[in-house]
Amino acid sequence: MKREELTEKILDIKREKGWTWRHICDEIGGMSDVLIVGALLGQMKLVKPQAAKAAELFGLTKAEQAMLNEVPYRGTGTPMPPTDPLIYRFYEMVMVNGPAWKALIEEEFGDGIMSAIDFDITFAREANPKGDRVRISMSGKFLPYKYYGNQQGVPEYGFEEE
Amino acid sequence: MKREELTEKILDIKREKGWTWRHICDEIGGMSDVLIVGALLGQMKLVKPQAAKAAELFGLTKAEQAMLNEVPYRGTGTPMPPTDPLIYRFYEMVMVNGPAWKALIEEEFGDGIMSAIDFDITFAREANPKGDRVRISMSGKFLPYKYYGNQQGVPEYGFEEE
Amino acid sequence: MKREELTEKILDIKREKGWTWRHICDEIGGMSDVLIVGALLGQMKLVKPQAAKAAELFGLTKAEQAMLNEVPYRGTGTPMPPTDPLIYRFYEMVMVNGPAWKALIEEEFGDGIMSAIDFDITFAREANPKGDRVRISMSGKFLPYKYYGNQQGVPEYGFEEE
Amino acid sequence: MKREELTEKILDIKREKGWTWRHICDEIGGMSDVLIVGALLGQMKLVKPQAAKAAELFGLTKAEQAMLNEVPYRGTGTPMPPTDPLIYRFYEMVMVNGPAWKALIEEEFGDGIMSAIDFDITFAREANPKGDRVRISMSGKFLPYKYYGNQQGVPEYGFEEE
Amino acid sequence: MKREELTEKILDIKREKGWTWRHICDEIGGMSDVLIVGALLGQMKLVKPQAAKAAELFGLTKAEQAMLNEVPYRGTGTPMPPTDPLIYRFYEMVMVNGPAWKALIEEEFGDGIMSAIDFDITFAREANPKGDRVRISMSGKFLPYKYYGNQQGVPEYGFEEE
Amino acid sequence: MKREELTEKILDIKREKGWTWRHICDEIGGMSDVLIVGALLGQMKLVKPQAAKAAELFGLTKAEQAMLNEVPYRGTGTPMPPTDPLIYRFYEMVMVNGPAWKALIEEEFGDGIMSAIDFDITFAREANPKGDRVRISMSGKFLPYKYYGNQQGVPEYGFEEE
Amino acid sequence: MKREELTEKILDIKREKGWTWRHICDEIGGMSDVLIVGALLGQMKLVKPQAAKAAELFGLTKAEQAMLNEVPYRGTGTPMPPTDPLIYRFYEMVMVNGPAWKALIEEEFGDGIMSAIDFDITFAREANPKGDRVRISMSGKFLPYKYYGNQQGVPEYGFEEE
Amino acid sequence: MKREELTEKILDIKREKGWTWRHICDEIGGMSDVLIVGALLGQMKLVKPQAAKAAELFGLTKAEQAMLNEVPYRGTGTPMPPTDPLIYRFYEMVMVNGPAWKALIEEEFGDGIMSAIDFDITFAREANPKGDRVRISMSGKFLPYKYYGNQQGVPEYGFEEE
Amino acid sequence: MKREELTEKILDIKREKGWTWRHICDEIGGMSDVLIVGALLGQMKLVKPQAAKAAELFGLTKAEQAMLNEVPYRGTGTPMPPTDPLIYRFYEMVMVNGPAWKALIEEEFGDGIMSAIDFDITFAREANPKGDRVRISMSGKFLPYKYYGNQQGVPEYGFEEE
Amino acid sequence: MKREELTEKILDIKREKGWTWRHICDEIGGMSDVLIVGALLGQMKLVKPQAAKAAELFGLTKAEQAMLNEVPYRGTGTPMPPTDPLIYRFYEMVMVNGPAWKALIEEEFGDGIMSAIDFDITFAREANPKGDRVRISMSGKFLPYKYYGNQQGVPEYGFEEE
Repeated sequence: MKREELTEKILDIKREKGWTWRHICDEIGGMSDVLIVGALLGQMKLVKPQAAKAAELFGLTKAEQAMLNEVPYRGTGTPMPPTDPLIYRFYEMVMVNGPAWKALIEEEFGDGIMSAIDFDITFAREANPKGDRVRISMSGKFLPYKYYGNQQGVPEYGFEEE
Repeated sequence: MKREELTEKILDIKREKGWTWRHICDEIGGMSDVLIVGALLGQMKLVKPQAAKAAELFGLTKAEQAMLNEVPYRGTGTPMPPTDPLIYRFYEMVMVNGPAWKALIEEEFGDGIMSAIDFDITFAREANPKGDRVRISMSGKFLPYKYYGNQQGVPEYGFEEE
Repeated sequence: MKREELTEKILDIKREKGWTWRHICDEIGGMSDVLIVGALLGQMKLVKPQAAKAAELFGLTKAEQAMLNEVPYRGTGTPMPPTDPLIYRFYEMVMVNGPAWKALIEEEFGDGIMSAIDFDITFAREANPKGDRVRISMSGKFLPYKYYGNQQGVPEYGFEEE
Repeated sequence: MKREELTEKILDIKREKGWTWRHICDEIGGMSDVLIVGALLGQMKLVKPQAAKAAELFGLTKAEQAMLNEVPYRGTGTPMPPTDPLIYRFYEMVMVNGPAWKALIEEEFGDGIMSAIDFDITFAREANPKGDRVRISMSGKFLPYKYYGNQQGVPEYGFEEE
Repeated sequence: MKREELTEKILDIKREKGWTWRHICDEIGGMSDVLIVGALLGQMKLVKPQAAKAAELFGLTKAEQAMLNEVPYRGTGTPMPPTDPLIYRFYEMVMVNGPAWKALIEEEFGDGIMSAIDFDITFAREANPKGDRVRISMSGKFLPYKYYGNQQGVPEYGFEEE
Repeated sequence: MKREELTEKILDIKREKGWTWRHICDEIGGMSDVLIVGALLGQMKLVKPQAAKAAELFGLTKAEQAMLNEVPYRGTGTPMPPTDPLIYRFYEMVMVNGPAWKALIEEEFGDGIMSAIDFDITFAREANPKGDRVRISMSGKFLPYKYYGNQQGVPEYGFEEE
Repeated sequence: MKREELTEKILDIKREKGWTWRHICDEIGGMSDVLIVGALLGQMKLVKPQAAKAAELFGLTKAEQAMLNEVPYRGTGTPMPPTDPLIYRFYEMVMVNGPAWKALIEEEFGDGIMSAIDFDITFAREANPKGDRVRISMSGKFLPYKYYGNQQGVPEYGFEEE
Repeated sequence: MKREELTEKILDIKREKGWTWRHICDEIGGMSDVLIVGALLGQMKLVKPQAAKAAELFGLTKAEQAMLNEVPYRGTGTPMPPTDPLIYRFYEMVMVNGPAWKALIEEEFGDGIMSAIDFDITFAREANPKGDRVRISMSGKFLPYKYYGNQQGVPEYGFEEE
Repeated sequence: MKREELTEKILDIKREKGWTWRHICDEIGGMSDVLIVGALLGQMKLVKPQAAKAAELFGLTKAEQAMLNEVPYRGTGTPMPPTDPLIYRFYEMVMVNGPAWKALIEEEFGDGIMSAIDFDITFAREANPKGDRVRISMSGKFLPYKYYGNQQGVPEYGFEEE
Repeated sequence: MKREELTEKILDIKREKGWTWRHICDEIGGMSDVLIVGALLGQMKLVKPQAAKAAELFGLTKAEQAMLNEVPYRGTGTPMPPTDPLIYRFYEMVMVNGPAWKALIEEEFGDGIMSAIDFDITFAREANPKGDRVRISMSGKFLPYKYYGNQQGVPEYGFEEE
């Protein structure tokens, strides 16, 4: 069984039942919608209680439930560059604005990155007379580059002095 | 003169003067930092008043000022996939989470995209005992796919019925 | 069930019935031919009434009808660069003329893009003694880049001043 | 001297003089704007009278004038896929809609292509209360695939029977 | 049914029957060997009479016969660059000699291309004491770039003045 | 000195003198036009007498003359896939027709290739009331795959038995 | 039936029987091991007597035997760059040493190539106290670039004068 | 001034002085050799005291010293896949062993990554009668994927429950 | 049977049995975990005793056991660049630090590489109050580039003089 | 100074002096021609005595002599796939024959590779009435994959049991 076969099975059930993602996320609960949907699409893992609820909801086998609890090979859900316009627009934002984001984040936080591992994202609809807007709130841990000393042997905690 | 030569000149002056981006953005003002820095890095244009202030600040020629007011060939500031870790993490977020974002946005807003043209982004430092976080707020106009009728000739306004 | 399996099924029926696209588009109606054919080829969605008519015409299941109403992963119908000569010629037009189009559109409309989301396209045969011509009429909404101010917090509507 | 150096020189003069493309096209005249701008950007050739007018306008040398009359290596003005959003949207239209265009053109015209060599394109601004639109009119010669007989030797004119 | 499945079926029959391409082309007739073989390999279409003969020869269904008469997605028969040495050598000729061909054709014919749509090609064995040679005769229509005037509206026939 | 700098110098002289390739090929003589132009564009070598004539014609230094007699790094004159439409059309012919050519050549000649090293190509204009045609005659040596026996040590001449 | 399905079948039999390649090559005989193994892996053809022996050894059908005698689409057995370390090392030798090989071969033999079509290769184990070595002996026909004269019409034998 | 120009200058001085990296690292001190050499090669930043020492050692200008303290665009020092064998071997280890590393780390640590930002690496020579070995010790912080709850609004600290 | 089908079967059994990699490695024993897991994932071979134990543990057929003892096509377990974040971080380390590693290893060991063939790697969890760390110990044989003399004929042992 | 600038300088001198590679290799001596030419083309290093002789021969500066003794970034002398036919043929041999070589070497030597680091290659002209041949003799050390045990800590010497 491959993860994409499980994804296809779940989407078939969703389609036949006429369920929305909201319904599914409410049933499974306990994790953000982005994570639950990501896991059902084969890009994230569900922690055990959520995997159990998903298995119950979709009528999955024991092995399928175990698979939802496994860490998948992430990044397989879209080609890069994305051919789908909705996903491409995010790609474009990174490509066009990446250099400015880098300059501003490094000036404010120092050398480091915003984590793509410990971050949360929420979407909200924002009513607007000129056309509704998608409001995205992201919060990601800043991880400073650690500089280590040059003693041979076991390194101590690195430092971050600017 | 190429745009990247102007960028290099501006960065040389910034380095020699010891200016921060904050200082530069405060001096130029009137646009968000992301846009000002993006323009100075050759990825955005400065509107006329800001181009004039930038020219004064950096001591640019008339032609260089005009160039800052031109729309550049965007997307030339980073290779894709990005080799720089800070920019790559954003790329990874899109690659890993793109499918879930697509599912959730389409369910909430219908068929369409979040604009990469009419959007705003702000960064803020968020103090956190487990390590400070980067808080990002984005707001992008939702653009619904328009479906047009099949009469030959001049199309009327399309429709968006789900 | 994958979207390309549904596309293959629809093409098999079309072939067996000996239907033309014109016949199919007339039967389904209500949307432009480009959109209907695009949806049946797995690149667009059919809105609900059209999906129902398509399901009736092709004898589809409930789930297949639902799938036609889903937004597909667009851009999967041709490799890029296109190997098929008909599609490649359009690609070549963009590659060769893109810089001139960019220069002329930006001078006329300012900084922005022509939407690939809200646009309509019609084809017509144009009789010509030197060989018939394909006449294409496109109309796409111009979307100006919005420049936002640099206040922290919720952004206001951006501006477009040149 | 390379063609891109000539392009850079022309753009420098345009910037210093503060000329618009409209002004330049009016001065050179005799060819569509897309072709004149395309040639000045190094993607098209100017026929002799226009090359002469361009040389006068920009104060070019004899050799530079000759270069404008040369057929350049087309397709060098943008990377593919385009990183610039304005050009990318056209690329996306081809990628997403190419299969539907192929189906519809082949059904109407038979096996063949729309020429990317003998085609004309014009842009116009279309006022619209929901936001101005870019109206594009293209007219390209349809070139039918020619099927040749299997006699050895010099082929006769092919045929196009469906 | 996919086109490559039809190709595979045809090749299986050819192999089982022990037929040569020559035999098959003689049976189907009416089109050049390159076109008939190309169509059976899924890269060209057979016109209706030839599709009928092919269907009879290979014992195809109605739908398979219809598929042979469809324009396929051309260019799917070999990866590019070709990994097969026989096809690669032609690729290499284009890569190494393309610039010289461009220079000579443009000087002789003016700005334009040799059509890849209206061209015929024949192969012949040429006995030679130093080793037999492949003699290839190609004849392709020259298509001049058409230059259009800059009046707004419907374009007239373009011109080709050098 | 790099080979492309020599090419650029030669093209500059050609442009300033207003010479045609025909004139240049007639002056240098002794080799086919495709080879002479190919060498001057940096993709072929000129044999010694021709290099000498070219040096005299263009007023080259001793070292530049020597460089024309060197085997260049071939294949550097065009990107692949070619962005220039004239060269691309040849590329497309190979991509679309390669599989058929392979089938027919192998059936006629057996396992092997048509040499891209020992081949000649000539172009001719063919008047045609429906539009002039480019007639191309190629003659390439057929090189059969040689099958060798499995004795260890120095191989004997291979065989080609079918 | 596809060639890789035949390859998979052959490998399954080899595995079940516990045969070595040596055993298989001895049974089939008459061609070098590299060619026999290459053919069974789908990259070479077996000449008729060897195909018959292979068919007997593996219990193949008539059609499968015919397929072994067909020229396959070569170059499909490994991605390039090779991901497998053993094959990659050869790739690396070419990449790192290619320029030196080119310089030395051209100086010794003149303009041309070493044939990849008429060449033989043998491997031998060479005992060595510092670790056994693989000794490879290759012998490939040198194919000189032929230079043709510029007379129109049928080319005569080219020449190779330096 | 570009970062690679500074790198080239530093390497020229190193070469002229005949300095080793060891000497340079000892002079600058305070950071691990990998970081100092990485920074001088344009892939890392030197913190301020080290940048000052480097400036003194190499006789750099104020602006050059500032540049060493800037975060560079990392990942520009080698193409990927690496063409250099020494770097390629590390790439190969990741490619070949990556799946096993992923399986083992995830089983031991749970869902997450080993940081490429907070990690230290040291090299040591390990004498060995069969040939000296390179001993590498790496220590990287494990960063667990954080799972966030689905309340709208500001996210709290995520959780890592398995 | 393909190697990835065997991998899929093994993973299905592991999932159904609820086994950990630790359990599997303990059962098979005799080789490092990285090698055992790598082999079960289709990237390494198991030596005969271990293949036998694995066959017993997973209830494999004779042929499947033999396949585990075969050298697979390594490097097929992850795309490159890796899309999975855990594997990507190792890729990034190589890309960002490769140039520094090259400089330091070559200075210490001379011209050569660290073997990717004869190397061992172990992972350990390192408790750390700021977050546990992954400690990696690698030991790879250094392989010096061998320089050979220029006598024709059989080469003697090369030398490594600096 | 970059390595390719040194290469260009050396080639200019070679051209002006009219030297052959043979002459240069004889003058420098002590290493195989492939290594000397490789180093002068920027792909190998010269050991110290040879670098000194090369410096004397070409009249190089101290720093240039030092650069010849540095390990360059190998693999930069040709794009991959190679566009030059001579180098491409070797690439093709690897692509087409790689799978057979892998099968035969692994059967004879076990799991491992032929070193691309410790190998020697010599070329010789082999007179042949059917056309001279290039005889290549390569001898590369076989490096067996080492399998390590799974004890934590410092690994012992691995084993190679089949």
